[in-house]
Amino acid sequence: MIVAGFGRFGQIATRLMLANNFTVVLLDNSIEQIEIIRRFGWRVHYGDASRIDLLRTAGAEKAKLLLVAIDDREKASELVEAAHQAFPKLKIFARAYDRRHAYELLKTPNVTVERETFESALNMGRKALLKLGLSERRASRAAAVFREQDDRFFKELAPVAGEEEAYIMATRDARETTERLLRTEMQRIAEEEDMEDAPQLEPAHRLEAEKERV
Amino acid sequence: MIVAGFGRFGQIATRLMLANNFTVVLLDNSIEQIEIIRRFGWRVHYGDASRIDLLRTAGAEKAKLLLVAIDDREKASELVEAAHQAFPKLKIFARAYDRRHAYELLKTPNVTVERETFESALNMGRKALLKLGLSERRASRAAAVFREQDDRFFKELAPVAGEEEAYIMATRDARETTERLLRTEMQRIAEEEDMEDAPQLEPAHRLEAEKERV
Repeated sequence: MIVAGFGRFGQIATRLMLANNFTVVLLDNSIEQIEIIRRFGWRVHYGDASRIDLLRTAGAEKAKLLLVAIDDREKASELVEAAHQAFPKLKIFARAYDRRHAYELLKTPNVTVERETFESALNMGRKALLKLGLSERRASRAAAVFREQDDRFFKELAPVAGEEEAYIMATRDARETTERLLRTEMQRIAEEEDMEDAPQLEPAHRLEAEKERV
Repeated sequence: MIVAGFGRFGQIATRLMLANNFTVVLLDNSIEQIEIIRRFGWRVHYGDASRIDLLRTAGAEKAKLLLVAIDDREKASELVEAAHQAFPKLKIFARAYDRRHAYELLKTPNVTVERETFESALNMGRKALLKLGLSERRASRAAAVFREQDDRFFKELAPVAGEEEAYIMATRDARETTERLLRTEMQRIAEEEDMEDAPQLEPAHRLEAEKERV
């Protein structure tokens, strides 16, 4: 496979590939970045990944996957489009800046996207909930429901993504629906936990409680 | 709680809090960003969160948590430090640009950090492994082992984070150890899966196989 862009994002994805014995060709077009990376022991090729001849030399004809992890929205979009034109069978994974960039990238067929801060933001939210005293289960469930809903609305809102006003309206609705759903789910878990708490009393405590009642 | 910086990152974490009935005060110092956010139906206060008086007005004395999700490394570091000085009991969660920024933020006590692209990059790597034909279990395990190891080395390397050469050497070692561990774990799962595959043959197929052997 080929990885274009070897910064914070590309490195982590690449290391998972290498550990599973996939052959990876790395491309980066910043000389500075390449020098830093080489000092850390990586072999990286220098060159503009948007040049189709360079992608061809890197093996794009036969590669199983092209992973676009460039830290530049426009260049990433251009590369994804050009690579698909030149190698229509190539599967492409692309790092998206945000939701809008994700929609833009998905105009090209055969592309899978990942919003670059989504999962980290969700994880920080989950950890903050834990710090605020929520149970592990409730915090994880909150993140999971949020992800499911976000995924659902991401797909549902795709048709209006290009229309400013319609998109904003739809997003507000989607947000309210997600919040309502999340609130209901959190309430449900809280009630379950309250119920679980009751019979968890030690026999001795239960006796105490009964005594008091007497 | 107080959220400083309400971009892609802050919004997601905030929505998890709101759904769990925490009161959130939002601060952002970009007028443009605030206008966009308000169009989406949010009430956000305008102001430079690094001004202590503004944090105080926002309720920092009593807040359970300050979430710093600013998209500017230096400003985030300054805010984290200043907020801790003024409100030593305040728990702070901070969005870090990368590993180095994370180390910098952690110099201040009472701070929890989250590298802003780490989880998303890991998730993309996991999904790429799935696309390349690995089992759900193997791909998820790869991501989990990577996270565990990364977490371990993040803590272990903290003392040398400020020393350029030592840090680079230690990072190379850590990377090799992680890769070796991951490879071993992936190998182990692959072998387990091969063994599980064998008895999963349908009875009819098993008969066929036996016939052939005869």
